[in-house]
Amino acid sequence: MSQDKILVVGTGALGSFYGALLSKAGADVSVVCRSDYSKVKQDGFQIKSDKLGHWCFEPTHVLKSVAEYKDQADYLILCTKIIPEIDRVELIRPAVSSKTRIVLIQNGVEIEQPLANAFPNNEIISGLAFVCCNRIALGITHHLAYGKLTLGNFNKTTRDSNSTQHLAALINKAGIEATVSEKIISDRWLKCLWNAPFNPLSVLSGGLSTADILSSQEPLIRTIMQEVMQIAKACGHPLAVESIETNIQNTYAMPPYKTSMLLDYEKHHSMEIEAILGNTVTAARRENIPCPTLNTLYSLMKLIELKEKTG
Amino acid sequence: MSQDKILVVGTGALGSFYGALLSKAGADVSVVCRSDYSKVKQDGFQIKSDKLGHWCFEPTHVLKSVAEYKDQADYLILCTKIIPEIDRVELIRPAVSSKTRIVLIQNGVEIEQPLANAFPNNEIISGLAFVCCNRIALGITHHLAYGKLTLGNFNKTTRDSNSTQHLAALINKAGIEATVSEKIISDRWLKCLWNAPFNPLSVLSGGLSTADILSSQEPLIRTIMQEVMQIAKACGHPLAVESIETNIQNTYAMPPYKTSMLLDYEKHHSMEIEAILGNTVTAARRENIPCPTLNTLYSLMKLIELKEKTG
Repeated sequence: MSQDKILVVGTGALGSFYGALLSKAGADVSVVCRSDYSKVKQDGFQIKSDKLGHWCFEPTHVLKSVAEYKDQADYLILCTKIIPEIDRVELIRPAVSSKTRIVLIQNGVEIEQPLANAFPNNEIISGLAFVCCNRIALGITHHLAYGKLTLGNFNKTTRDSNSTQHLAALINKAGIEATVSEKIISDRWLKCLWNAPFNPLSVLSGGLSTADILSSQEPLIRTIMQEVMQIAKACGHPLAVESIETNIQNTYAMPPYKTSMLLDYEKHHSMEIEAILGNTVTAARRENIPCPTLNTLYSLMKLIELKEKTG
Repeated sequence: MSQDKILVVGTGALGSFYGALLSKAGADVSVVCRSDYSKVKQDGFQIKSDKLGHWCFEPTHVLKSVAEYKDQADYLILCTKIIPEIDRVELIRPAVSSKTRIVLIQNGVEIEQPLANAFPNNEIISGLAFVCCNRIALGITHHLAYGKLTLGNFNKTTRDSNSTQHLAALINKAGIEATVSEKIISDRWLKCLWNAPFNPLSVLSGGLSTADILSSQEPLIRTIMQEVMQIAKACGHPLAVESIETNIQNTYAMPPYKTSMLLDYEKHHSMEIEAILGNTVTAARRENIPCPTLNTLYSLMKLIELKEKTG
């Protein structure tokens, strides 16, 4: 079996970690870096995993832009944040060949369709990472806990389960669990059930942890989760009735946690407001599902974003 | 006619300004101060009004507590903020005699009943100040613009319109407009129509001005105002149908403005969350009026308050 050629676009914590795992499993992995370029070109990535130990991930090619990639990728793994400044379609277009599977390891709901529209003959694999890892310095990624990757085929017409199974097998080979899901879109909505309340509330509260938010405003959390449940159902992806209760209890059991949106806000980085809230309220409007609480959170986050821009 | 004896409790910007006007009009005005006590005891208040000029207001008595007041007040004017740390009934009780009219110049809705319950035989006069003034230093109040005071009798059984008219006449005599309203409770709801959106949104947005909030999220503002309209109506105080449009247009015409809640938040002072939002959502619950947007804002402000307390 020939070596898989993989291009990772976006090498923050997620991209560098999963890229490193795929390289460990024997794939030919190249990366497109932005801020880390010089450091990574010289030294590769240092992966410090509390679970798998420390190692150096040296990509085959370290590139400044997607257009510099001259191979034909079997898998193009997109790991950027989903923010207005990044046009994902144009970003990856130069490296998408007829055989390239496009893999999204990104947050949010309804994030696949724009890529499926732009690349109708390519397989789109949607991925959800349940991992705690941070980029702690240029070219250095710290993997603290978890890591599970769930992968699933987005579009039926181009489905090729073998390639998704194969990608999951590579991750598993590297020592981290990866599974293939037949209901990846429902899985995204399930993740949104947690993200939609806790990400914006952590920012809007001025920086409270998930534990403080939940213990003082549990009814609000439940209201938001109920709205997400109704939207997911209307979109054809009903979640299990116990999903809210499970999420609430799991969050009580977690250590106090800073959400990704709060971390971005504190660093004055762009937040994934559209992927998490904007797409959710757009889906609600399309399906005629009222969601006054989500609408309010979305509007408030747009105000926060405006304040960040205008200072 | 004998000189009116007036006790002003709470001498922030509002209390010092209206106390100074009543003194100017010839009343015998004493004050209960907290943080300004030593300074005011020695020098009185410096009133710097862009409209009426500068003068020194020297109260008859400058007191540390209400219990120190040995006269019988014709009017006790309560000008504190309405915040959980202040028990308004117990605060004023020592100076409330059988003839004392209790005047509230305070923010919020449904703020009179606790005082009417505690002092059922006293006249309760509810007041709304439309004034731009700030305490710029200990004992120094800057009056920038406006000033109109609207007064109205809260309880019918103890109504004595003459005393309300008389108080308004004193303010008018000092050069600031004061009117007596037959529908002071509706007037409070009308003020709430503006306060309920703009006060919390200025804080939740991270500090945007009213102009920025309105120009970027006008639909949210309208949604909140519609909820307030419905609650006011259910409480028996319907507002004029054009109230929302008038408020929106007036706010567009105002210079960019920092709300009182934002000023308190920036100084890490207690915010009037209960008087403005808490009482509104409580009234909605009592009257069975859904108000999902106000509920969300109220919960979010409680989170902000928690973050302020826990740091």
